[in-house]
Amino acid sequence: MKLPGQEEFEASSACENIPTGEMDSSLVPDPNPGGPSDTDSTEVGVFKDPMLFIQLNELLGWPQALEWRETGRWVLFEEKLEVGAGRWSAPHVPTLALPSLQKLRSLLAEGLVLLDCPAQSFLELVEQVVRVESLSPELRGQLQALLLQRPQHNIRTTGIRPCWGFTDLRKASHDEDTPLKEQHQNALRLKLPPGVEAAAVLAGELGFLAQPLGAFVRLRNPVVLGPLTEVPLPSRFFCLLLGPPTRGRGYHEMGRAVAVLLSDPQFQWSVRRASNLHDLLAALDTFLEEVTVLPPGRWDPTVRIPPPKCLPSQHKRLPSQMREIKGLSRPRGAPAEDRHDHGPHATCPELQRTGRLFGGLVQDVRRKATWYPSDFLDALHPQCLSAVLYIYLATVTNAITFGGLLGDATDGAQGVLESFLGTAVAGAIFCLMAGQPLTILSSTGPVLVFERLLFSFSRDHNMDYLPFRLWIGIWVATFCLVLVATEASVLVRYFTRFTEEGFCALISLIFIYDALCKMLNLTRAYPIQRPGAPAYGCFCQYPGPGENESQWTRTNLKNRDDILIMDLGLVNASLLPPSECTRQGGRPRGPGCHTVPDIAFFSLLLFLTSFLFATALKHVKNSRLFPSMVRKVFSDFSSVLAILLGCGLDAFLGLATPKLLVPREFKPTLPGRDWLVSPFGANPWWLSVAAALPALLLSILIFMDQQITAVILNRAEYRLQKGGGFHLDLFCVAVLMLLTSVLGLPWYVSATVISLAHMDSLRRESRACVPGEAPSFLGIREQRVTGLMVFILTGISIFLAPVLKFMKRVQLLLMPAKHQPDLLLLRHVSLNRVHIFTAIQLACLGLLWIIKSTPAAIIFPLMLLGLVGVRKALEWVFSPQELLWLDELMPEEERNITEKGQEPEHSFSGSDSEDSELMYQPKAPEINISVN
Amino acid sequence: MKLPGQEEFEASSACENIPTGEMDSSLVPDPNPGGPSDTDSTEVGVFKDPMLFIQLNELLGWPQALEWRETGRWVLFEEKLEVGAGRWSAPHVPTLALPSLQKLRSLLAEGLVLLDCPAQSFLELVEQVVRVESLSPELRGQLQALLLQRPQHNIRTTGIRPCWGFTDLRKASHDEDTPLKEQHQNALRLKLPPGVEAAAVLAGELGFLAQPLGAFVRLRNPVVLGPLTEVPLPSRFFCLLLGPPTRGRGYHEMGRAVAVLLSDPQFQWSVRRASNLHDLLAALDTFLEEVTVLPPGRWDPTVRIPPPKCLPSQHKRLPSQMREIKGLSRPRGAPAEDRHDHGPHATCPELQRTGRLFGGLVQDVRRKATWYPSDFLDALHPQCLSAVLYIYLATVTNAITFGGLLGDATDGAQGVLESFLGTAVAGAIFCLMAGQPLTILSSTGPVLVFERLLFSFSRDHNMDYLPFRLWIGIWVATFCLVLVATEASVLVRYFTRFTEEGFCALISLIFIYDALCKMLNLTRAYPIQRPGAPAYGCFCQYPGPGENESQWTRTNLKNRDDILIMDLGLVNASLLPPSECTRQGGRPRGPGCHTVPDIAFFSLLLFLTSFLFATALKHVKNSRLFPSMVRKVFSDFSSVLAILLGCGLDAFLGLATPKLLVPREFKPTLPGRDWLVSPFGANPWWLSVAAALPALLLSILIFMDQQITAVILNRAEYRLQKGGGFHLDLFCVAVLMLLTSVLGLPWYVSATVISLAHMDSLRRESRACVPGEAPSFLGIREQRVTGLMVFILTGISIFLAPVLKFMKRVQLLLMPAKHQPDLLLLRHVSLNRVHIFTAIQLACLGLLWIIKSTPAAIIFPLMLLGLVGVRKALEWVFSPQELLWLDELMPEEERNITEKGQEPEHSFSGSDSEDSELMYQPKAPEINISVN
Repeated sequence: MKLPGQEEFEASSACENIPTGEMDSSLVPDPNPGGPSDTDSTEVGVFKDPMLFIQLNELLGWPQALEWRETGRWVLFEEKLEVGAGRWSAPHVPTLALPSLQKLRSLLAEGLVLLDCPAQSFLELVEQVVRVESLSPELRGQLQALLLQRPQHNIRTTGIRPCWGFTDLRKASHDEDTPLKEQHQNALRLKLPPGVEAAAVLAGELGFLAQPLGAFVRLRNPVVLGPLTEVPLPSRFFCLLLGPPTRGRGYHEMGRAVAVLLSDPQFQWSVRRASNLHDLLAALDTFLEEVTVLPPGRWDPTVRIPPPKCLPSQHKRLPSQMREIKGLSRPRGAPAEDRHDHGPHATCPELQRTGRLFGGLVQDVRRKATWYPSDFLDALHPQCLSAVLYIYLATVTNAITFGGLLGDATDGAQGVLESFLGTAVAGAIFCLMAGQPLTILSSTGPVLVFERLLFSFSRDHNMDYLPFRLWIGIWVATFCLVLVATEASVLVRYFTRFTEEGFCALISLIFIYDALCKMLNLTRAYPIQRPGAPAYGCFCQYPGPGENESQWTRTNLKNRDDILIMDLGLVNASLLPPSECTRQGGRPRGPGCHTVPDIAFFSLLLFLTSFLFATALKHVKNSRLFPSMVRKVFSDFSSVLAILLGCGLDAFLGLATPKLLVPREFKPTLPGRDWLVSPFGANPWWLSVAAALPALLLSILIFMDQQITAVILNRAEYRLQKGGGFHLDLFCVAVLMLLTSVLGLPWYVSATVISLAHMDSLRRESRACVPGEAPSFLGIREQRVTGLMVFILTGISIFLAPVLKFMKRVQLLLMPAKHQPDLLLLRHVSLNRVHIFTAIQLACLGLLWIIKSTPAAIIFPLMLLGLVGVRKALEWVFSPQELLWLDELMPEEERNITEKGQEPEHSFSGSDSEDSELMYQPKAPEINISVN
Repeated sequence: MKLPGQEEFEASSACENIPTGEMDSSLVPDPNPGGPSDTDSTEVGVFKDPMLFIQLNELLGWPQALEWRETGRWVLFEEKLEVGAGRWSAPHVPTLALPSLQKLRSLLAEGLVLLDCPAQSFLELVEQVVRVESLSPELRGQLQALLLQRPQHNIRTTGIRPCWGFTDLRKASHDEDTPLKEQHQNALRLKLPPGVEAAAVLAGELGFLAQPLGAFVRLRNPVVLGPLTEVPLPSRFFCLLLGPPTRGRGYHEMGRAVAVLLSDPQFQWSVRRASNLHDLLAALDTFLEEVTVLPPGRWDPTVRIPPPKCLPSQHKRLPSQMREIKGLSRPRGAPAEDRHDHGPHATCPELQRTGRLFGGLVQDVRRKATWYPSDFLDALHPQCLSAVLYIYLATVTNAITFGGLLGDATDGAQGVLESFLGTAVAGAIFCLMAGQPLTILSSTGPVLVFERLLFSFSRDHNMDYLPFRLWIGIWVATFCLVLVATEASVLVRYFTRFTEEGFCALISLIFIYDALCKMLNLTRAYPIQRPGAPAYGCFCQYPGPGENESQWTRTNLKNRDDILIMDLGLVNASLLPPSECTRQGGRPRGPGCHTVPDIAFFSLLLFLTSFLFATALKHVKNSRLFPSMVRKVFSDFSSVLAILLGCGLDAFLGLATPKLLVPREFKPTLPGRDWLVSPFGANPWWLSVAAALPALLLSILIFMDQQITAVILNRAEYRLQKGGGFHLDLFCVAVLMLLTSVLGLPWYVSATVISLAHMDSLRRESRACVPGEAPSFLGIREQRVTGLMVFILTGISIFLAPVLKFMKRVQLLLMPAKHQPDLLLLRHVSLNRVHIFTAIQLACLGLLWIIKSTPAAIIFPLMLLGLVGVRKALEWVFSPQELLWLDELMPEEERNITEKGQEPEHSFSGSDSEDSELMYQPKAPEINISVN
């Protein structure tokens, strides 16, 4: 199952983005420009070189009005000038025709190649290029004048107004090498990472040339070549491709070919280090060997391919000498290893068993202690403020939702106030103490389900609920401490996708089912009135001379129909509404007096409206209509906005819909109890011992719920630097278990969705985004402050409770969208086998559902644990290879396979070379427990 | 605006599909196989050759268990064997690496090339291939045995069970050349067009070979090579690529390269005619010149590109000699011409002015008369039956909808019965007589709006509506006849997209506005009861001793509150429901007695449910979940299904929602009127003359509504063979105008959406679809029978009227989805200019809306005509080039541009060569008038 808010993680973590953002520090002017000597200078990304901005200036208007115009530009992808529309095209993957590359090759082979040209200005450069050519002096002059002519750029300045180049300035002084205001104001400049260099390609057809003229220049020191490029960047490369008019746009295409070559990281790497023409041509040939060819009959070359979400990995394209030096070549079997990065098994040192009592806990404390100061310092970023606001809203929504549900489930033994207080206290303590402070504690679905079962059980057996619950809490804390002491958390390696999915699907199902049931129950509380049904009969009867009150009470009325057909005789009546009637001393009479019409349908309408509105807002993210910021806000706050809409509609119509009861004073919801729960109450003493049995079940539940979330949060793709703390987290949960039980507050464990949202709101991303490039994911701001702030705010909110008269029925279940066509999986496992696997999962789920519906419901945590066993049994049904694709490997299988030779064996390695490297990238988490 | 049901037209008409379906007749075994002599034999499509099925058999299992396995196949696109999953990949555009093409070239250059090989069986072929090679006899034997070994195919037989080749038969007799049962049962066979030939490519690494071995064979007469190919087709080409083991899968890639080459139409054309090795290599070089190259740094070569919706045009790739012979090269300026195919201007001879009175009508009748017999014969196809059912349902839905709306609009002067009768009579007559019998006549939005305005006008001035309307009908018929006589229909050339969009947007807006108003009015009719509101006070009062009836009637009660606070004194009361109360001689008292609760919200719920359900079903078409047939049925019948759902819900709950009144007898809805409308009624005589004024307005409306639809239906992309009949259609409409006015039936003109749906249900498409190929559009079954049947059925349905107790409120407006990112437009016109154009359109629309809302509403047809004038005025604001892209050209501009040199001039022809040919393809209609 995929959850809302996960897409970003997936998109970024699965890709090998060229990390433009990381160039901030290291790529400001290259200290060692050019030359083949610096192969092992500082390295960023795969190829260490600065990024290139490449611009194609085309010579147009032959023969009357020659002018240079920028008609294409490249950073990662190509943008074309759309002349009629006067704008740049969307960035797209550049496509070339093979002949243009071949013609370019021969032109370069015969032309002028200047490597490490010492020119300090555009004028010097042009003089160099023109002088060396075998041209007549007259032609040289003409050519020089032409080259120095100012090109027209299509610049969008940082203001909104697009500015059409320098048409009016074209005849200004030529030798001025300083760039113009428009160039400095170019909005594109802000998108390029610092340290970027420029390359200018000049191409076109020139009538007075008898033969083609090609020149390729690498400047020793990059210089700003005046108004040549639209962004005033120091230029490193310069390429000139001119020739007599030909059929088609041959020189334009050759110009594009040079630009595309220069935008290729490997070609660029080689050409920066080329020492002669031969090196240059060799680099071109290497490029040609690696191109992808699309056949002309099956692909329209004019189609613009949008930038792929992930750039292909450039690792294997590293020049071999460099690869050897860096030791960057991937080890054999690496793909299979990457596949296991899913779980934290391979990477997490915190999951190594120490073998000592509390060894894991001690290690966790020791490890986290070193990060503790930085956990506060790292929060000094404005992003943390918005994260606090966002997570605060989500937490409050959660607290209200679960408070309401808990109130329902425990018949008022706990309520919204307890939910707020507990969330604030437990959350804040956890954020201060835990191993993974990014985790947000919350009431979660499984625990709520358990609490509901527990309450019905104790009600049915006439027990005092809160004292019984206190003992359960004490036992659970004890068991959890035992689990911490024995380092049981290392067992999370057995929580594969199979277990997680079964667990989550069951919980989701319970919630959806409950929501629908409640909705339908409304029609019982507020019956719909069919035509002819007499439910709205009502009048006000006064005591008076015709008083025959006795008739109502005396007559033993069986049902409503009896009332209706009964002749009341003489009464003193009016039609005052019930409340007014009572006030004036009368009595409202009739079945219609206490019926509220319209509520059932209106509630259903509100339910649908809020659900559809929230769903629609979620999808706004993928719309094309608004700027991405607006879309993100809409979709991030979709639930909140939908709830607000529902409340607004309700308030506007002012109908008597059922509302959430929020206490107005700071005291326990259950009347007449102290904050401290009495240890026995009306229960017999032995119940405190017997509580160990349900506590065992709850411990399993807490352990699984807590650790599945922890596993998801600590996955490798989030690139957490400070590591997790499985043992410490469980220890904190155990202590909080004790505390909340004593105070009669709800129980708390880590909630997946809200924790993921927390991490998501703390993503660090590369800011400057080259056209066509997706922002790259740099990591998470790992700190304790945002969580702490959220819970402090939640605590303060208790005193705002009267404000929070939120509606109860609008808390919707956003059913997790199941849209996950895992095609790579299907490339390797036959569909039948996938179906069998799914069928088994479904059967398990069905069994769990049945158990949940019987009186044995309370043992369902045991069954959840059984899922792990079923998964183990699957090894008899499926081969390890299949399980590798369908699920994940359990530790033993993993070892077996590793021993067999690092890679799962295929009898036929047929289509392996076909698979993209992407399939070996770690995937994003697909699991969720809590519902938001 | 785009309408549901139009996508198919667009998708197919914009593409140049390779017409596999048309090969049915002409491509059964090529009478002139091979050889360069038959360059000018019969031609189908661009290249006349039979299609090739190409299969790559790879040698696997070296060194222990050598076996041939089919690992790839090609018809138009590539399918790869996914070994682990045991299935074929989805078809995709094949991508190659350049080196594999180059290696293949050198292997072929050094290898054996047999053109016109006379082999009659696989054995003979293998002997030939092996004998010529410079191999030792021993090697030859080994090789021969290896080649004759049966390959394994992944065959999905026509049964469901996939069959894994012939594993058990592999050791059976080798020299048997007859294909096996599995091959004959191969499901793929049904997808290939008749006459298709096979090509087999055998590639692999063979340890005992010292040097590479390449052979390319063209058989003189194609023969079935036993079990070599998975489909037992006659093989034309055979290619063998073997060599010593190398790094990577070099021979596999070379094999793919040969296959991709052979699947290219131009390469195939050349190789079928090659007379020597040189020709073969030249064809390969030509291929190389035309490939599209993707740079390695920006494109992951392992990504599988899905088949493009439209294959690139192969016209320009025709070998020059062939192009000259055929005269197939496109004339210059063709693109600009194609752009004008939008309207029927360029192609329709029926829109040439003859200059004689009724000249156009006479021509239309003459032209259509020749097709008249075929209009009945062409209907002999089962597809017509389903079309009749589909359009019948749509027509009945329409008749009910408009019947209900008309009843509302005319206060019952017309109703559902009139709507059914009129639809049946007018539709049937039109289908028998009209120029374009595919048109479906219906009440349409504009006419309904006019009728509503007319009725309010005559009611406000105390006129007798139907007689007044009769005179208007007489005048409209007269005016229309004048329009026919003067050939006014040629003016449709002035109906460009601008006019159409303005017209349609206004009508849609009116309908949406009306629907929402009606929905909100429900809350007035069935008020929502707020808490404390006393509306549900009600009791039953009997006459009796305490009778003080007078108090109710005597007291001058101002408002409901007075009733409520009034003390009734002594009454004899009960709580019987109102109906029962009356029956027992009592009187229901109180404001609550006649209120029906829940209706407003329930109606709103039904409205939303039906709308969302219909919208969701419409989108099912683009889902991935069901087979395409199921999806098509769901989305085609979405409105009907949604209405049924709404009715079902309503019936299930049995609430007293307002229902549509359907007559139970065959007589006019207005009580007391004859079928024939009396010519004067209560109106003064001069009203029959004055009726000419509104008739003039209505004539404009009828003319525009009718002709805009006609223009859309007769567009070139539907490839209608029998032409339209604009004059004849208008004549029919005029006659029907008269008839319906005399009988007091609704007025009818062509309805766009339903007519398009009619055409859509009669599409002829190529049946056999090669993997990855979209079915190609061949034309429409043009005939009169389906329409006639629909209207006969509609007529019969009048007697089924009691069955049709459909709900009234569920008739939803499916707002036309505006989702039309015309990027090609934006490539040529600046966004600002587009915005200005849109702003003008919006301003016009606003003006129309304002006029529609004032007492001057009735003149709005005049304003619609004004749109044409505004469009003409736009020529001062926009250049002809911009208008060409934004709208369409009006006839004068067109001529101007044509005179200037066939093409719109661009001062800079920069990115023209970049644009796909697709942009010159005629576009699908985007206009709609009627609402379904």
